[in-house]
Amino acid sequence: MAGIVVQNIERPALSVIDGLAKCGVATCHEAQGRTGLLAPYMRPIYTGARIAGAAVTISAPPGDNWMVHVAIEQLREGDVLLLAPTSPCSDGYFGDLLATSAQARGCRGLIIDAGVRDLRDLKDMNFPVWSRTVHAQGTIKATLGSVNVPVVCANALVNPGDVVIADDDGVCIVPRVDAEAVLAKAQAREALEEAKRQRLASGELGLDIYDMRGKLAEIGLKYV
Amino acid sequence: MAGIVVQNIERPALSVIDGLAKCGVATCHEAQGRTGLLAPYMRPIYTGARIAGAAVTISAPPGDNWMVHVAIEQLREGDVLLLAPTSPCSDGYFGDLLATSAQARGCRGLIIDAGVRDLRDLKDMNFPVWSRTVHAQGTIKATLGSVNVPVVCANALVNPGDVVIADDDGVCIVPRVDAEAVLAKAQAREALEEAKRQRLASGELGLDIYDMRGKLAEIGLKYV
Amino acid sequence: MAGIVVQNIERPALSVIDGLAKCGVATCHEAQGRTGLLAPYMRPIYTGARIAGAAVTISAPPGDNWMVHVAIEQLREGDVLLLAPTSPCSDGYFGDLLATSAQARGCRGLIIDAGVRDLRDLKDMNFPVWSRTVHAQGTIKATLGSVNVPVVCANALVNPGDVVIADDDGVCIVPRVDAEAVLAKAQAREALEEAKRQRLASGELGLDIYDMRGKLAEIGLKYV
Amino acid sequence: MAGIVVQNIERPALSVIDGLAKCGVATCHEAQGRTGLLAPYMRPIYTGARIAGAAVTISAPPGDNWMVHVAIEQLREGDVLLLAPTSPCSDGYFGDLLATSAQARGCRGLIIDAGVRDLRDLKDMNFPVWSRTVHAQGTIKATLGSVNVPVVCANALVNPGDVVIADDDGVCIVPRVDAEAVLAKAQAREALEEAKRQRLASGELGLDIYDMRGKLAEIGLKYV
Amino acid sequence: MAGIVVQNIERPALSVIDGLAKCGVATCHEAQGRTGLLAPYMRPIYTGARIAGAAVTISAPPGDNWMVHVAIEQLREGDVLLLAPTSPCSDGYFGDLLATSAQARGCRGLIIDAGVRDLRDLKDMNFPVWSRTVHAQGTIKATLGSVNVPVVCANALVNPGDVVIADDDGVCIVPRVDAEAVLAKAQAREALEEAKRQRLASGELGLDIYDMRGKLAEIGLKYV
Amino acid sequence: MAGIVVQNIERPALSVIDGLAKCGVATCHEAQGRTGLLAPYMRPIYTGARIAGAAVTISAPPGDNWMVHVAIEQLREGDVLLLAPTSPCSDGYFGDLLATSAQARGCRGLIIDAGVRDLRDLKDMNFPVWSRTVHAQGTIKATLGSVNVPVVCANALVNPGDVVIADDDGVCIVPRVDAEAVLAKAQAREALEEAKRQRLASGELGLDIYDMRGKLAEIGLKYV
Repeated sequence: MAGIVVQNIERPALSVIDGLAKCGVATCHEAQGRTGLLAPYMRPIYTGARIAGAAVTISAPPGDNWMVHVAIEQLREGDVLLLAPTSPCSDGYFGDLLATSAQARGCRGLIIDAGVRDLRDLKDMNFPVWSRTVHAQGTIKATLGSVNVPVVCANALVNPGDVVIADDDGVCIVPRVDAEAVLAKAQAREALEEAKRQRLASGELGLDIYDMRGKLAEIGLKYV
Repeated sequence: MAGIVVQNIERPALSVIDGLAKCGVATCHEAQGRTGLLAPYMRPIYTGARIAGAAVTISAPPGDNWMVHVAIEQLREGDVLLLAPTSPCSDGYFGDLLATSAQARGCRGLIIDAGVRDLRDLKDMNFPVWSRTVHAQGTIKATLGSVNVPVVCANALVNPGDVVIADDDGVCIVPRVDAEAVLAKAQAREALEEAKRQRLASGELGLDIYDMRGKLAEIGLKYV
Repeated sequence: MAGIVVQNIERPALSVIDGLAKCGVATCHEAQGRTGLLAPYMRPIYTGARIAGAAVTISAPPGDNWMVHVAIEQLREGDVLLLAPTSPCSDGYFGDLLATSAQARGCRGLIIDAGVRDLRDLKDMNFPVWSRTVHAQGTIKATLGSVNVPVVCANALVNPGDVVIADDDGVCIVPRVDAEAVLAKAQAREALEEAKRQRLASGELGLDIYDMRGKLAEIGLKYV
Repeated sequence: MAGIVVQNIERPALSVIDGLAKCGVATCHEAQGRTGLLAPYMRPIYTGARIAGAAVTISAPPGDNWMVHVAIEQLREGDVLLLAPTSPCSDGYFGDLLATSAQARGCRGLIIDAGVRDLRDLKDMNFPVWSRTVHAQGTIKATLGSVNVPVVCANALVNPGDVVIADDDGVCIVPRVDAEAVLAKAQAREALEEAKRQRLASGELGLDIYDMRGKLAEIGLKYV
Repeated sequence: MAGIVVQNIERPALSVIDGLAKCGVATCHEAQGRTGLLAPYMRPIYTGARIAGAAVTISAPPGDNWMVHVAIEQLREGDVLLLAPTSPCSDGYFGDLLATSAQARGCRGLIIDAGVRDLRDLKDMNFPVWSRTVHAQGTIKATLGSVNVPVVCANALVNPGDVVIADDDGVCIVPRVDAEAVLAKAQAREALEEAKRQRLASGELGLDIYDMRGKLAEIGLKYV
Repeated sequence: MAGIVVQNIERPALSVIDGLAKCGVATCHEAQGRTGLLAPYMRPIYTGARIAGAAVTISAPPGDNWMVHVAIEQLREGDVLLLAPTSPCSDGYFGDLLATSAQARGCRGLIIDAGVRDLRDLKDMNFPVWSRTVHAQGTIKATLGSVNVPVVCANALVNPGDVVIADDDGVCIVPRVDAEAVLAKAQAREALEEAKRQRLASGELGLDIYDMRGKLAEIGLKYV
């Protein structure tokens, strides 16, 4: 079943990807009906990064990072690497050398449901990673996995070419075919939120803006 | 049992609250006899914040943040929101819009035994949060909870109006009626610690300052 | 069995220790055959620190930090304190006063398989700590432990005088007698990596640099 | 603050306690409005036990079981011991000797937000325990705690004399003053459930019994 | 996106399902190339059960079990319910009443990446459940989910009609279209294992049966 | 560093080993000064087993069980296999075929700081295992480890030939050279405990048996 590299995958337009990056994880997640989030244990190795990219997926054996080298050849400008091990693993699959290579191919970051290492170098390089853990323990190169096949990563299904959005709130997957529609909804949502933000900042209450008082009273809220 | 909003709660004087903030979590915790700490899984979303405030408490159903809107109306200058879900939940109850509203009412931060989102915005706004987790997953508005009732949050009992102190060390609760006395003890402790710090910095040993050598020998410590 | 303080321990030369610090955890770990890592739950309280030092070890009862005072007297310039509790414990054994004292004796940092507190002060003092958790809960001084005996810390064996290397990737132990040899291998490794980094940065692929294509084809990798 | 033993606590009638035991955790929890559950990490050391009793509470220092001896003297027929450490602790506070002593005083079991040991003996004695963990690591007797004071145990508030119900589903606390009312509701609930169980067993659907089809259609459920 | 019930799903032949049940999780997992395992935190509520069935999948909002009622109507003889919440949740979605209803429709058990309750009754009914946790905390009925759509459950993708195999080793998913082929391989594997078992039981060594000595020597194993 | 099999290890007399098994984990742990316990996450796959044996240790790469085959050849009557992976791993290294082989060589059980599978068969064979987790995920055979070298397992140091004691309370290691002395102390302890058990069972209080009342009063315990 393993041992496949899919070379031609479809990707959304870069303009769509970049639009989703600007909206961020929380907004895009809301905009697509609250789906697509990776498990909350996926955390950034440094704060402040916000990226989006087309997923080049890696299905890797536990403790074996051989397929990362294979996947890097498949990268294009604007891609994000996303690695799911075939059984739970905390080993450090990825460090600064692989990041140097990936970055040279246009890669914007890594999502890995396992460990990462060389944190100081990765931050200095401005190569963001969202991972399950940090671990200096290295991996071997002995067994095949696959590249650009569907994977389940941190409890979410990811197809190659899907948009990966990642920031301090976590990681969200937008299916490739939905990307344009989700972007439109996310941007609309942002516009609405900006208006609300100004009203709330001026001291108006959500209870009034969203007209909640009647409904709350109706189901029995009591002020004492 | 749910569905209650207590509107008039007593709060300690702001001067007492601000004094406790200056002393910080570790000192106040010691000063009140090592009680009142929330579980250590409560971590700040960014480092360096140190706040104290009177607790406006929220007892919220899992995955439902309706009561946060209700609670915001009860906030006064110098308060801190503190939310405890009625069953374990990692959903993101709170983001930048609610923070905008709370901040406009004088709120200094949020303590939440659940998830939070919009981290970048919260940091930019200088609105600190101590939470169990970070999760972009949103919540619904369907079920009643209560505001300003006693809650158990991260394994500690909190009554409305109690002082919440929070910094990089975690979160500590000082009961409202004890606040003044604890502040006095905390300040006394700080004065003592400053003196000790100078002696230790000069190379004097705790073994001598605290006169421990005799007792250690007596219970059998052996140098080899 | 407890109650022993070993006063004269051997330490590697400071030049060797400092060389290992420069190489960092991931490189030293590789250089000594992927051994010596502490469990990945050991995390720094602030990012960016990279230290090495000779271990002054502390075997401490759960929730009792008396032995830390005893250990501080044994510190020399270039040492690192390393504490392992005799049963799992999250209490905050260590704060800014002890750090002041340790730093005055030349200590470079603390590795503790338990809790730490006073994070803001520790960062301000530039005293790095790698710990299992952060907890303001204090400890008592009632029971003996030992200083400078072999301990198991975060699933790794540490002998007094072993080199402790710690950075954002975690913590690695290099046995004292191996320190010089590991340093040589680590430095050789760094030189090699620098050469590879430049080739990778220029866009050359690991598949070609490491001559992997033949072997991958042989065990069945298929491009589709 | 510690060092108090409250000797005269009020307890509900044994008939009420025994009635609640028969209803079990899930039913009693529902009957009192879904409150009072301890955190789900509290698990029984063996399956099949179902008990209820009046809580004799113990607030104990971490790793110190001295107060258990003090608490045992306060036990009466039909009581349950409930121990909350003042900071997180996995040590084994309790084993077969203490169980022998507690059982001789009429104690029905132990709830402990920490560790327990001597599992084989406890099962042979038919002395059930719900604990956070199992650990053979013993404790010391050096510091005071308190007996029969309010405690927060596994994220729930427990007052002495409250009813503790425990079975394979976990542990639920019913406040003493509510015990009779909750029993009445729990028994009513059980009667209703029995009727429903028979209808469901005969193949009737909940969709019809609870008349859900209309409401589901109304909010948009689609069959395809 | 939610609010869909797919009524006609394809299922493998019952004979195939029953054959897979007999082989068990570990063997079927090996037979299909080590894929399809749910995360190891999914544990049975009692030991000794070994089932297989066609998956009737439920995508449920956190803390809301309304869709379980909807799903039960879709059950046929030999099915297994499999529930994945749309965000992490430990609430008890399922108890003895729902089990009674499901069992009356031919359901063989439940796989749930959340909580379950009424353990004693479920065991008495012989209705096995594999869950993330046990929790008496109930759920509400307020929001739509979907039935018989693809879900990601405990880090594995499950399509309706896939075969779910569950025993004390965990849970494994065999895609519907592969079921027959996997069964053949699993049965072949079992036959082989039986032969090996007899040789091993007689004292022959795996080193010799699998002819490992040469290869081990070649890569450098040294006996000292 | 890996790739070593030590063939001749010293073992304690079987009579000593069997004596320690009878005393059990909690008693032996106390008898040797509260040292030697493995981390409490090591749990038995079925309850009621109580074994002791000389450790045949395995240092294994993550996800690679080749060395288990090598270790089995080194087993003698009365031994226990003990496996520590060189980085954290939950894969199922061991199942019923390996157990058949080990049992045929006189092995009494397995201690593994990783995963195990084939639970039903292992229980039927009466081959007990204490493990970190249960996982059907298999391992590969590609990399060398070592047999009968010192290992750190679940945060405890184990030398080959040390006595491993395991029961429902967990796992305890008694160093080979201490085995006889620890047995003597453990048996003395058991005799004492039996006497105390009878006094406690008759209703006498620990407060009186251990003469605690005076000391408690002295440090300030108050009865109210």
